[in-house]
Amino acid sequence: MIIVMEPDAGDAEIAAVEARIRAAGLDVHISRGTERTLIGAIGDERKLDPEMFDPLPGVERSMHILKPYKLVAREWHRASTIVNVDGAAIGGNAVQVIAGPCSVETQPQMNAAADGVAAAGARLMRGGAFKPRTSPYAFQGKGVEGLTMLRNAAARHGLPIVTELMDVRMLDAFLEQRVDVIQIGTRNMQNFDLLKEVGRVDVPVILKRGMSATISEWLMAAEYIAAGGNHKIILCERGIRTFETAYRNVLDVTAVAVLKRETHLPVIVDPSHAGGKAWMVPALSCAGVAAGADALLIEVHPCPPEAWCDADQALTPAEFGALMDKLDALSCAMGRTLERRRSEATIEAI
Amino acid sequence: MIIVMEPDAGDAEIAAVEARIRAAGLDVHISRGTERTLIGAIGDERKLDPEMFDPLPGVERSMHILKPYKLVAREWHRASTIVNVDGAAIGGNAVQVIAGPCSVETQPQMNAAADGVAAAGARLMRGGAFKPRTSPYAFQGKGVEGLTMLRNAAARHGLPIVTELMDVRMLDAFLEQRVDVIQIGTRNMQNFDLLKEVGRVDVPVILKRGMSATISEWLMAAEYIAAGGNHKIILCERGIRTFETAYRNVLDVTAVAVLKRETHLPVIVDPSHAGGKAWMVPALSCAGVAAGADALLIEVHPCPPEAWCDADQALTPAEFGALMDKLDALSCAMGRTLERRRSEATIEAI
Amino acid sequence: MIIVMEPDAGDAEIAAVEARIRAAGLDVHISRGTERTLIGAIGDERKLDPEMFDPLPGVERSMHILKPYKLVAREWHRASTIVNVDGAAIGGNAVQVIAGPCSVETQPQMNAAADGVAAAGARLMRGGAFKPRTSPYAFQGKGVEGLTMLRNAAARHGLPIVTELMDVRMLDAFLEQRVDVIQIGTRNMQNFDLLKEVGRVDVPVILKRGMSATISEWLMAAEYIAAGGNHKIILCERGIRTFETAYRNVLDVTAVAVLKRETHLPVIVDPSHAGGKAWMVPALSCAGVAAGADALLIEVHPCPPEAWCDADQALTPAEFGALMDKLDALSCAMGRTLERRRSEATIEAI
Amino acid sequence: MIIVMEPDAGDAEIAAVEARIRAAGLDVHISRGTERTLIGAIGDERKLDPEMFDPLPGVERSMHILKPYKLVAREWHRASTIVNVDGAAIGGNAVQVIAGPCSVETQPQMNAAADGVAAAGARLMRGGAFKPRTSPYAFQGKGVEGLTMLRNAAARHGLPIVTELMDVRMLDAFLEQRVDVIQIGTRNMQNFDLLKEVGRVDVPVILKRGMSATISEWLMAAEYIAAGGNHKIILCERGIRTFETAYRNVLDVTAVAVLKRETHLPVIVDPSHAGGKAWMVPALSCAGVAAGADALLIEVHPCPPEAWCDADQALTPAEFGALMDKLDALSCAMGRTLERRRSEATIEAI
Repeated sequence: MIIVMEPDAGDAEIAAVEARIRAAGLDVHISRGTERTLIGAIGDERKLDPEMFDPLPGVERSMHILKPYKLVAREWHRASTIVNVDGAAIGGNAVQVIAGPCSVETQPQMNAAADGVAAAGARLMRGGAFKPRTSPYAFQGKGVEGLTMLRNAAARHGLPIVTELMDVRMLDAFLEQRVDVIQIGTRNMQNFDLLKEVGRVDVPVILKRGMSATISEWLMAAEYIAAGGNHKIILCERGIRTFETAYRNVLDVTAVAVLKRETHLPVIVDPSHAGGKAWMVPALSCAGVAAGADALLIEVHPCPPEAWCDADQALTPAEFGALMDKLDALSCAMGRTLERRRSEATIEAI
Repeated sequence: MIIVMEPDAGDAEIAAVEARIRAAGLDVHISRGTERTLIGAIGDERKLDPEMFDPLPGVERSMHILKPYKLVAREWHRASTIVNVDGAAIGGNAVQVIAGPCSVETQPQMNAAADGVAAAGARLMRGGAFKPRTSPYAFQGKGVEGLTMLRNAAARHGLPIVTELMDVRMLDAFLEQRVDVIQIGTRNMQNFDLLKEVGRVDVPVILKRGMSATISEWLMAAEYIAAGGNHKIILCERGIRTFETAYRNVLDVTAVAVLKRETHLPVIVDPSHAGGKAWMVPALSCAGVAAGADALLIEVHPCPPEAWCDADQALTPAEFGALMDKLDALSCAMGRTLERRRSEATIEAI
Repeated sequence: MIIVMEPDAGDAEIAAVEARIRAAGLDVHISRGTERTLIGAIGDERKLDPEMFDPLPGVERSMHILKPYKLVAREWHRASTIVNVDGAAIGGNAVQVIAGPCSVETQPQMNAAADGVAAAGARLMRGGAFKPRTSPYAFQGKGVEGLTMLRNAAARHGLPIVTELMDVRMLDAFLEQRVDVIQIGTRNMQNFDLLKEVGRVDVPVILKRGMSATISEWLMAAEYIAAGGNHKIILCERGIRTFETAYRNVLDVTAVAVLKRETHLPVIVDPSHAGGKAWMVPALSCAGVAAGADALLIEVHPCPPEAWCDADQALTPAEFGALMDKLDALSCAMGRTLERRRSEATIEAI
Repeated sequence: MIIVMEPDAGDAEIAAVEARIRAAGLDVHISRGTERTLIGAIGDERKLDPEMFDPLPGVERSMHILKPYKLVAREWHRASTIVNVDGAAIGGNAVQVIAGPCSVETQPQMNAAADGVAAAGARLMRGGAFKPRTSPYAFQGKGVEGLTMLRNAAARHGLPIVTELMDVRMLDAFLEQRVDVIQIGTRNMQNFDLLKEVGRVDVPVILKRGMSATISEWLMAAEYIAAGGNHKIILCERGIRTFETAYRNVLDVTAVAVLKRETHLPVIVDPSHAGGKAWMVPALSCAGVAAGADALLIEVHPCPPEAWCDADQALTPAEFGALMDKLDALSCAMGRTLERRRSEATIEAI
């Protein structure tokens, strides 16, 4: 940490800063420039915080030199983490696709969705049983019953399931249903009590980026989970909030490239929530993979106009199948492989 | 709701939209323009949603005409709501001040804080026992023990207490400690399960604006609480996230003016978190009251450089006293009155 | 245009709105709902503006139904515009690359840059002679002399040149030097006098998106150029300003997909300014092409650490060559072709 | 400037950084920490730029310690600058008000506006003859003829005039008309050629903040003007662009407080463009003054619903008069004085 003193800071003020650094067990290095004196703290600066120095007399400002995250930083863990979900590896050379409807509605709807998802070759299935809705009057999800429907539908094709946890009190139900991947939604990225709880279980977690969370805040949210002991963390970029109103969010592909450098964790992209319109999904999916995403989280519904939630962003199974073919070619051009489930027909033929 | 059809939409596509509106129990009104056909839904459009129409063939887009909130809207409840907290009215002509440290540290610290807050004339006291911290390694608050310290310190001067609830599982502890006002923090503005729970109790709630929440999302979060039966809701503007990095947040005074028109609920301002620096607090406090805020939420610490949290934004009791005097004059110029607790000395003298 | 009346608007107020619509030569259609009366204007609503109605008594708000741009809208010009720059077609099936240094420094530097750009196969060359710099003390560009250096260097390989115009008074010099493509920078996207001037010449224009310009404002800026008679307009996404500070801008790939639908004009991407770091350029270039960009604008410098401007974002010729190979494979996977200049050696061999 | 080396940077890489600092004439100070080596440049760091170091091998990042602006910084010019406009002092203890219509339309309209502005006691008059309009089809201003109308109307009451310059080629016309204050609009804040030109004349300049300009960029734009020799610069906060869509811009009152500390230049507020609605203007005007603004720039039109531009944000003369009374009381409460022109009647009576 560097503490920049005001131009007219005196020796007593410098000494007070020095004392506070030493009290935290770090060493001190002073550099007197022509316009400012700088005080450097030598040692593990994560023990220090700007607010320990900024209120002191004579201090102009103080800055961390190191990033605040450690467990999730690539600096300290060079090899990429691969999260294995029932045989599907996320974070390695393969590109994975997780697909399914926004919300669980009925068993037949889920079965049809699972059929479409499996036929197109996706290796994992998603579906929301608990829905974070802006309006208290909107459909709030089928709850625990929805978890069972999702589990049943996915089981018909041996697909692991991904679903969102909103409330700490529901974690036991998720464990009972053997949810394969717990999703933490954008509105809960800094719900720290929830992060602490999923940090205590041995289930992979998809941590969606908060709507206006910085890379640093996002990685610190992941650090909460890792600090609890759960290192199976997958970061999901889902579009950020900006001034633009022509589309719901701005898919931040730069974040994908930056995260692959900053952290060893897998990074995936949700093109469906990013744009908010089905017709944008192919372009955003391709952009995500081209930027380096390890997987995609795509909404697919057997009949989008009848969907109970986010109807305008779901692909039909046919559209999804065509996109999978495109992603296949693209992954190959990027030097990766789209992992694609072989259809039952193919499996039987072998 | 208005549904705008694409230029080449045919009769069958228009009929499909019409059918969907009628199925929801509303009437239909069609207007054929030179470039577009518009379909209007007549009736309670809150039963409809753009995503019911946008995925239909031939639909360009659809728009709500009415605001999505109802219980909290001034349109349906013209008189301003006044939330009475143990005799301190928030939302009427009086301007209130809630003050205290960012976090509860020790009983002596809290007592000193309470003394300073009371001496300057604030009518309510704040203090955080559960702290939402970006880093898992930072001080997370004193927890239930902190609630007791806050209660004890405030009781010495008869001040009602305001403190943040982060986790639904802690609500019972808040009720046991008879917390006078439950604060929902910026990161939990859309923690819908938490909103539902505080909607079920009879305790005033301060609902802070999410870091990048729109006015509409914020009012819909308030609607969650109101829909549960708790109408004692106070909205708190605390600065929004923008591109600017010279200060922590941008205090959005326009939101104050707009909310006073859109909702009947009281609106207050937190100048301490907005700017993030103690020296900004007086200017931002004055701007907040000048824009129409019903109360201020100000951080005061007996010795800011020693504070365990947000040290750089707390005022000393002396600075706070001087600010109260300024707010007194300002409130008066705005045609309001700063409600100011008479000091014990004054009370005794009467 | 739809005018939404306030709940208690009376007949006189409705009549006043009606009169104003008819005065502009449009027809009127009134729809009385249960909560609001809506007044629709039938005809060319581009003659109307919300500010004609919003200040009238009884009006709640008014909304355009149509987009404000016309000449640049795909709705009125279905076929994609292909801008031909000296044989290089931008906007068709081919993907083009424009490359070169941020700023023109010396003739040897420009020659080396041109050699590298040509060797890697780019079809067009860029270089800045007039530089918009945040600081008045920073290098402001070589001016007219720089245009000559750029022209000379590019001529050695027959590359058309792209360079930025900042000041209307310099347009003649650009025409004299036969600049092949005039670039309007992000800070001048709404310099309307400059837009009007480049609208009067017959030279292709690259219009960069303003740092926080909406899609609509950007297309209206293009409409200024088109309205002047110059239809050779190329839109360039170069990253937008958001709350994120970990990188310079956020490359908005959603804008690429949306623009390809909204306008018939070519859309290109500048991955160098978007991220601000050379190591991000390959990922962002790929993401841009995957999202549908028609060309890329890439900074290449013979020796980046010696560059006088934006040194940290330029690729070396070798890095650029490797990226061209990657883009070749990617374009192919996307069903397009990277247009690649054959090297002199190859040409001679034929 | 501090250069942070990568953890594994070797002696040769450190030496290369050192050489580059010394080549610029500064001294070097090296600090070896446990996790990083830091290299400090001692001397006038404005000669250095991060891009001189960031591309060098072994450099993680580099940071300025000092602010990039000098002429406009309060650090180097402690006393507040007072810009005197024909007797009206902006930047001292008095609070000034500049009022008038958005655009000059006709001589009678301007005369009526001037009468209203003068009657309410404002000391300066504004009016736009050249209008930056988003649409090429919208009214673009009356041009030079409009300047004359503004001058004539204002002269009837001896009011100095403030009007916007968009195009360098019009500067001579502004000087001929003896425009008292030249306004640089938000879209031209970084039109550096325009800034250089107004830096060469001896006329006060109001520099509006760019729609998404940081404080630092804004002050650097002012530095362009000051570097040219014109120190009569007035900064105008007019609302910034954010994610919020319920109002046009977010008036950034924090910027006012921060600027009063960072620069010696006067800071004023435009509440009319900030909110975009007349009903918001009183609240935003009060908030601006409460935050410390030295003047307000308020739109007043004799008949807002008939205004040719921004009709929905202009106050009537009567509304403006009432606001002036409120500002009078408020300025007094803030320890300042609203400077108010005595009416002709009063003057005659003396």
